[in-house]
Amino acid sequence: MSASEQLSASNPIEAMAQRARVAALESARLDGGARRAALELMAAALEANKAQIAEANALDLSAAEENGVSGAMLNRLRLDEAGVVKVAAAVREVAAQDDPLGAVDDEVVRPNGLRVGRMRIPLGVVAMIYESRPNVTADAAALCLKAGNAVILRGGSEAFYSNRAIADAIRAGLAESKVPVDAVQLVGTTDRAAINTLLEQEEWIDLVIPRGGEGLIRAVTEKSRIPVLQHYKGVCHIFIDESAPTSLAAEIVLNAKVQRPGVCNALETLLVHKVAAPRVLPIIAEQLTADGVELRGCSDTVALLEGAEVGEATEDDWHEEYLDLILAVRVVDNMEAALDHIAKYGSSHTEAILTEDQSNGGRFVSAVQSSTVLVNASTRFADGGELGLGAEIGISTSKLHAFGPMGVRELTTRKFVVFGDGQIRT
Amino acid sequence: MSASEQLSASNPIEAMAQRARVAALESARLDGGARRAALELMAAALEANKAQIAEANALDLSAAEENGVSGAMLNRLRLDEAGVVKVAAAVREVAAQDDPLGAVDDEVVRPNGLRVGRMRIPLGVVAMIYESRPNVTADAAALCLKAGNAVILRGGSEAFYSNRAIADAIRAGLAESKVPVDAVQLVGTTDRAAINTLLEQEEWIDLVIPRGGEGLIRAVTEKSRIPVLQHYKGVCHIFIDESAPTSLAAEIVLNAKVQRPGVCNALETLLVHKVAAPRVLPIIAEQLTADGVELRGCSDTVALLEGAEVGEATEDDWHEEYLDLILAVRVVDNMEAALDHIAKYGSSHTEAILTEDQSNGGRFVSAVQSSTVLVNASTRFADGGELGLGAEIGISTSKLHAFGPMGVRELTTRKFVVFGDGQIRT
Repeated sequence: MSASEQLSASNPIEAMAQRARVAALESARLDGGARRAALELMAAALEANKAQIAEANALDLSAAEENGVSGAMLNRLRLDEAGVVKVAAAVREVAAQDDPLGAVDDEVVRPNGLRVGRMRIPLGVVAMIYESRPNVTADAAALCLKAGNAVILRGGSEAFYSNRAIADAIRAGLAESKVPVDAVQLVGTTDRAAINTLLEQEEWIDLVIPRGGEGLIRAVTEKSRIPVLQHYKGVCHIFIDESAPTSLAAEIVLNAKVQRPGVCNALETLLVHKVAAPRVLPIIAEQLTADGVELRGCSDTVALLEGAEVGEATEDDWHEEYLDLILAVRVVDNMEAALDHIAKYGSSHTEAILTEDQSNGGRFVSAVQSSTVLVNASTRFADGGELGLGAEIGISTSKLHAFGPMGVRELTTRKFVVFGDGQIRT
Repeated sequence: MSASEQLSASNPIEAMAQRARVAALESARLDGGARRAALELMAAALEANKAQIAEANALDLSAAEENGVSGAMLNRLRLDEAGVVKVAAAVREVAAQDDPLGAVDDEVVRPNGLRVGRMRIPLGVVAMIYESRPNVTADAAALCLKAGNAVILRGGSEAFYSNRAIADAIRAGLAESKVPVDAVQLVGTTDRAAINTLLEQEEWIDLVIPRGGEGLIRAVTEKSRIPVLQHYKGVCHIFIDESAPTSLAAEIVLNAKVQRPGVCNALETLLVHKVAAPRVLPIIAEQLTADGVELRGCSDTVALLEGAEVGEATEDDWHEEYLDLILAVRVVDNMEAALDHIAKYGSSHTEAILTEDQSNGGRFVSAVQSSTVLVNASTRFADGGELGLGAEIGISTSKLHAFGPMGVRELTTRKFVVFGDGQIRT
C-alpha cells in the first residue's frame, strides 16, 4: 500500500501538496547519511547545470530590464556561472552540518519507571513563498531537506526562468539519491491564485515561510490557514550607556549603520545616556556625517550638535525602518528610559547596549524582549551564520516556534518518546 | 512615560488586548519570586472566595438544567466549595514549579570571541478560548502567569457566572502582588463577535489557544491572524508486535481503551501482527467485551474471533475518534504495514508499540511522526502531568512551536543573547 495511490486531488496545487506529504513521510524514515548524500548530489547537479541555469537567468535579466528594473534590484537577480558554483558550495555547507534529527534530550524517569524524552523530528512539509534572489531556491531546498522535510517553492515572477532551472537541477540530483524527487517541488506558475490555493492546504502543509516585503508577509498571514513564520521589519536600536567607551561606541555605531544599511539588522535609532551624550555624540555624529549618514535628532541632540547638520526628528522617525543612510538619535535620561523607548517603538528584532557596567549589560539583556539582544557588539551580528546556526532560512520576529535567526534546527520539532515495561494509568 | 498613556483603542476588546500587552511587559521585568508570590496570592484569594464562586456556579448549573443539560456535561460544569479548594491547590502546584524564565542554554563562543546563548523569555500575551469546565479559568491563568505572560480568557457561556467569579477572585489576589492585575482579564461577554475582534488583535496578542470541540478550533484557526495552537482529535493506535507478551498486551490495551474512553489519548484502533493475532486477540477480545467494548474488526479479525460479537469495520472506522467504548481492530502483516496504517489514518497524537524486540521498539519510536510515541505503556500517559511537565495547558497536534502536551515551558520562547567586547561585522 502506498499512500500516494490513495490520494485524489481536485487541483494541481493540492496534488503537489499531497505529493510533498508523501515525500516528507519517506524522507523522515531515512537516516542522516542518506539526507547528506542527497544534498551533495543536489550540489553536484547544480554545478553540472551551471550553464543552463545562467542562460535561464539571462532570460529573467532581459525581461527585468525591459520592465525598467535596474541597479541594485537587477544585481540581486543576477546569477552567472560563478554564482551557481557559489550556490552549490552553500548547499555543500548545509550538507556538512550535523544531522539535526533523532537526538533525544530532556530525559527524565517518572516515579512509575517510565523513561520519557524528547526526540527531534522533521516538521513535515514547508512552503516557501519568496521574492527576487534566485539563490533562495537552492538555499531553502537544502535547509528544508537537511531537516528531513519536503519543500514547496514559490518564487517571484521576476526570477521565473532561473528558479525553474535551479529546481530542475536539484530534482535531477535527488533522482540519484534516496530522498524522493518530490521532496523539492516548484510551483510552475506565477499565477497569484496558486498562492491562495497553496495557503489552504493545511492538511498537507505544516509551515509557510514568506520571504520578501512587508506586503507579501501580511498578505500571506491574512490568507493562510497554515502556521506562518513572519519576518517583519527590524527597527534596531543601540543604547549608549553612561560608561560606554567613546571609541568602542563610535566603531560599533558606525558598523551597525553604515556597513550594510539596507538589511534588517542595520541600526535605525541610536539612544544615548544624557551623561555620555556630550562626550560621544559629537564624535559619532562627525564620523557618521562623513560617511554620508543623515541624522534626525531629538531636541537635546540638535542642541548638543549645534552647528552640525541634524534634522529635527518627528514621532514618525522613532517608528521608521529607514533601510538607508539615515539615523534617528535620541538622548535619554537613563537606561530605564531607553528600555521604555525600545518597548514602545521597537520591532522585537535586535537591540544592543554599549556599556562598561556589567550589571547594566545583564539587566538590558534580560529586560529587552527582542529576538537578539547584544552587549558591546554590532546589531549586524543578528544573523544565523554569525550566531553559529549555519545558513539561515529567515529571521522570525514572531515569538512562536522560533524567535530570531532560524537555521536547520528551527525547521524541526520534538515529539515525546516514552519507554515502559507494561505501565498502565490508574 | 507609561506605554498605557499612549494607547488609544477603538473598542473594548482592543483596549483589553492593549492593557494585556502593557501588563505582559511589566510582568516580564519581574523576577521568578514575584511571579511565584503572585500565584500564591491568587490561590489564597480563590479559597477566600470559595463561597461566592460556588454560588456563581449554582447559577450556571440551574441555567444549564433549564437548557436540558444533564449527566456528564452537567458534572463537568459543577464546582462546589471543595472543588474550588482543589482548584486553588492546583494553582499552588504551578506556583511551586521551577521558574522557567531567564536560564541561558546552547551557549557557544564564536571564532570572533562573541559569546552567544539562548535565554528563555515569556511569549507575551496569550488568549485562551475555551468551553465548559470552569477550572480552566484558574489553571490557564496560573500557567500563563508562571511563564511571565498576560492572559485574556474567554470561557463558554455555559460557565459565565463561574468564570466571572473565578476571574474576580484571581484579580483580587493579583492586586496584592507585584504582577499587574491586568495580567489576567476575562472577556465579560458571551457575544461571539467579541471572539472575532479578539482574533484580529495580532499587534497585541502573541498566541491563541482554543480548547474545546473540533468546531471551535477550526473556527478560531480560520478567523485568526494570530498564531493558533491546535488540539485536534486523537485517533490513537496500539500495535501489538509479534513478540508482545499476552498478559502485558491485554492489560495495556484494556487500560488504554476502557480506563477513560472519552479522552483524546484513549485507544481507538488496535493493530495486531498476524503472527501474534491468534495468540492474543481472543483473550483481549474476551476481556474488552466483558467490559462492554464493541469491536469492529477487519475480515481477518472477524475470522479469528469466530463466534464472538465482532462487527465488520468499514473504511470510516479507521478514521474514527470514537471517544466511546468502541474499538477498531486490524490484523497487519508486519510492523511496516502498521506504520503505513498509522501514517495514513493517524492523527499525529499518540501511538504505542507493545513488543519484546528492542530494535522494533526503537524503529517504531523513530518512524512514527506522532506527538507521543510509547513502547510497552498505555497511550493514556500522553498527558503533561504524567510526562513530568506539571499541569498542562493543552496538547498540540500541530508541529509548530510545541508538539504534544504543553506545560509552562511551552508558554515561553527563547531569544539570542550575545556578549562581546567591541566586535563589529566585516
